Amino acid sequence: MTSLARDLGVSRQTISNAINNPHRVHPETLERVLDGIRRSGYVTSRAGRQLRTRKADAIGFRLYPTYDGINGNILDRFLHSITLEAEKFGYSIVIFSADNDDREVEHLVAMKNSGAIDAAILAASSVGDARPDELFDKGVPAIVFGRPWGRETSSIPWIDVDGRAGTREVTKLLRDAHHQKIGWIGWSPEHGVGADRRSGYEDAMGDSLDSDLCLLCPDDTAAGRDAAHVLYGRGATAVVCASDTLALGAVSSGLYDISSIVGFDDTPVAQALRLNSVAQPIDDIARHCIKQLLKQVNEEEPIRETLLPATAQIRQKVIKL
Amino acid sequence: MTSLARDLGVSRQTISNAINNPHRVHPETLERVLDGIRRSGYVTSRAGRQLRTRKADAIGFRLYPTYDGINGNILDRFLHSITLEAEKFGYSIVIFSADNDDREVEHLVAMKNSGAIDAAILAASSVGDARPDELFDKGVPAIVFGRPWGRETSSIPWIDVDGRAGTREVTKLLRDAHHQKIGWIGWSPEHGVGADRRSGYEDAMGDSLDSDLCLLCPDDTAAGRDAAHVLYGRGATAVVCASDTLALGAVSSGLYDISSIVGFDDTPVAQALRLNSVAQPIDDIARHCIKQLLKQVNEEEPIRETLLPATAQIRQKVIKL
Repeated sequence: MTSLARDLGVSRQTISNAINNPHRVHPETLERVLDGIRRSGYVTSRAGRQLRTRKADAIGFRLYPTYDGINGNILDRFLHSITLEAEKFGYSIVIFSADNDDREVEHLVAMKNSGAIDAAILAASSVGDARPDELFDKGVPAIVFGRPWGRETSSIPWIDVDGRAGTREVTKLLRDAHHQKIGWIGWSPEHGVGADRRSGYEDAMGDSLDSDLCLLCPDDTAAGRDAAHVLYGRGATAVVCASDTLALGAVSSGLYDISSIVGFDDTPVAQALRLNSVAQPIDDIARHCIKQLLKQVNEEEPIRETLLPATAQIRQKVIKL
Repeated sequence: MTSLARDLGVSRQTISNAINNPHRVHPETLERVLDGIRRSGYVTSRAGRQLRTRKADAIGFRLYPTYDGINGNILDRFLHSITLEAEKFGYSIVIFSADNDDREVEHLVAMKNSGAIDAAILAASSVGDARPDELFDKGVPAIVFGRPWGRETSSIPWIDVDGRAGTREVTKLLRDAHHQKIGWIGWSPEHGVGADRRSGYEDAMGDSLDSDLCLLCPDDTAAGRDAAHVLYGRGATAVVCASDTLALGAVSSGLYDISSIVGFDDTPVAQALRLNSVAQPIDDIARHCIKQLLKQVNEEEPIRETLLPATAQIRQKVIKL
């Protein structure tokens, strides 16, 4: 700017005014200065502004691989929601991929230190998740969509959905319809979310709980179909699933009426097939995440723990055929 | 840096060397300078580097609203692919939402001018799409996933998939299985993609084309279900659809065996239901987009027009019941 001022024979203040307060500059001078600025290639860039404010107006979020596109879809919906919500406050979302949690943390810390992001949103928390402590230690403002499974407290704020209560509610609906033998198709207990949802099923089954009707498998439709065959062979007349992916597998077995199957996440597939499911309030979660992150960026105290209810989406009257 | 140099009693060059060429600085001086840098809060930030290189190492991409999560999923898959591919070259993807094409262009131009992105990827091209010319005029390096529908040439490079050939191939399979009356469920012709896919169906039907069996509707499962009912009433024994969303609607009508229905985009839903569909090579498209964008950023000549084949995914032997 100094050399431009010298070339044009004006003060640095005049150049600054031409950019920031053009009404203060004589029109002829303004035109000459703006022309000089254009010819010099000097621009009021984000980079220059960042040097002054040290803010990127951006939030980092790891994009997980699409593993099935059915329940995996929930994180894509979340990404859409946080993008819309961040935009309201002038923030962008910077996405990146990472092979594992360590790489994710490295990436977020590097982006924070280089001024590419101001804060981070984590998803897919699991038992023994080290990311919150690491980001906290490195001074990266962050929030987790997911609970600190297996721990009492978290070093950074979190928000999650009460999957246990949601699963309990839909399992009770099946019991109220006089189903006696109700099967469970879910995930291994190391998966915090899977254990949480299954505990709701166990709550509702109470003394009638039969461990032979409780199957654990990977989250894909083929596994759900196989599990439905096993449960049918063991006399189960209805099936509660930890995901719509597994429920779609159970539907495709052709062994159960759709009113006797319940999924989880209320995905577009559940909506299209008119499958009963349990919905997470994704837009509310996104709104909360952005709000609590901006509080941290602005050095205000965020809400540290939030558990939102899940909502049973009953499209088929649950009956016993 | 000047005031830091004064405070430490060294030259600006010494400070620059301490950061960029530490081996050129006497160890004791180096330690003193680095300590001074740390205490002053001066960091070699992305913002500082950007001021020198004018590169953001980021690519802008508009995130479209999830309208159904079935075929809408294709752009989420594309987003995942470009994120992975960009990462290989040290680039991030910056996503944002926009109410319309004009706002998208404004956003991209503003981000380019402020140094937040180096280039842009456009998707969802339509007839009369003004975005390529506008980005070209404003000097934003860009590529379009989608053709310049209704125009001979495009001001910026594009890549697309030959939906016409893909639809022709699957329609021919139904004809070869002795289906005489084959229905089409697709989108309005203003939608370039919808017209392209339908023309493949028309190619394959030839003289047997019956406009009463050609239905246009919005891209949702309820519309697909309704259209399947109409086509069934008009005697169609098989149905070709412009999307898996419409095909899922046709499946849910319960009027057709799944082997007599074909979708488009080979979504996870098609895979789960073992529905015949037509696949787009999303990873190849993403790889091409990133490569041709980086060529532009590096002022090399990109490939301007690329049409990749679609692939019929036949999971059910097509038969006439």
